[in-house]
Amino acid sequence: MSTKVAPDPSRRSETARRAILAAALELVGEVGYAKLSIEGIAQAAGVGKQTIYRWWPSKGSLLFDAFLAMAGEGEAAALPDTGDLAADLKLVLRATVDELNDPRFDQAMRAMHTEIVHDPALAADYAQRLDGPMRELKKERLRAAQLAGQLAGDVDLEVAVDMVFGPVLNRWLHRTGPLTGDYAEQVVDTALRGLMPR
Amino acid sequence: MSTKVAPDPSRRSETARRAILAAALELVGEVGYAKLSIEGIAQAAGVGKQTIYRWWPSKGSLLFDAFLAMAGEGEAAALPDTGDLAADLKLVLRATVDELNDPRFDQAMRAMHTEIVHDPALAADYAQRLDGPMRELKKERLRAAQLAGQLAGDVDLEVAVDMVFGPVLNRWLHRTGPLTGDYAEQVVDTALRGLMPR
Repeated sequence: MSTKVAPDPSRRSETARRAILAAALELVGEVGYAKLSIEGIAQAAGVGKQTIYRWWPSKGSLLFDAFLAMAGEGEAAALPDTGDLAADLKLVLRATVDELNDPRFDQAMRAMHTEIVHDPALAADYAQRLDGPMRELKKERLRAAQLAGQLAGDVDLEVAVDMVFGPVLNRWLHRTGPLTGDYAEQVVDTALRGLMPR
Repeated sequence: MSTKVAPDPSRRSETARRAILAAALELVGEVGYAKLSIEGIAQAAGVGKQTIYRWWPSKGSLLFDAFLAMAGEGEAAALPDTGDLAADLKLVLRATVDELNDPRFDQAMRAMHTEIVHDPALAADYAQRLDGPMRELKKERLRAAQLAGQLAGDVDLEVAVDMVFGPVLNRWLHRTGPLTGDYAEQVVDTALRGLMPR
């Protein structure tokens, strides 16, 4: 309705906000979380430190939002459903492996995990804003597989999600072995067929 | 060979060392990692701060040793083998759940995980001194199950260990759900029989 042509302050804020989030992700990939500073982010984003402190109380909270923004873009979509559960899960997990092996993503994720592990409030926020919706999408795919007869009807879907998606995250986080696409495929096959002899 | 009866300085050092490690664990359970200080540990252990700094460069490295000492006492033994794989795994995982729900252990473990996630050198140390030997014991139990015909012969034991022991650790670390003995049992049953319909 407005006919003003002057620059819109809220739009300018949004531009600055995006620049700050992008700079935070870029920088954490270069220097790591320990050396990441609000000053460095401000410089890289071309804003003043005060601008950052107005919106975020700490580098942890800033990085958390940056991570949510990044994850929100790429992963909010439903999991693929070609009718072949194993193939679909392998596709998704291989993409996850590629992401986790990307230094930019790796550093941001490690930083966020640290915050979460020590801060129950942030963990709740993470669960509600990111992990929860993602889990729901994973469970939807598994539910479809149950209907298609590819997944046992009496399997607890929470446990199933942990089985399929947990090991790749664990191996990355704790560096217990090489994080490869082959490992991701092995996890899917093993989770589906189980450990017992058939 | 020595006939000296004067106090043995190396024994006195060992006593101080143990007191410091115990105080660190006790204190981290009370105040959390963020508020844990070398000064506080020194006070609780009845030693000077210099004594601690002589042996450890940081609270992270001190807590890491404290954790290793604690874990080394209780868990270096082989996994139980009653001939019933599922029952044995459930017993072990239920004990793990109890441990992780103990505030003293919880705080120490979270602190150590933070250090590991951000420090590849410490991760390597952890893998060699704690996780590696523990994994070997788990794989030994699974290998025995393969010989007894309770585990498929072609299962990769690294992946099997991740399947059985990962989810409880994950749920604890990321607080994705209630950490109960029932969950532990469900994980074992699901890992063994797999997600596909039979």
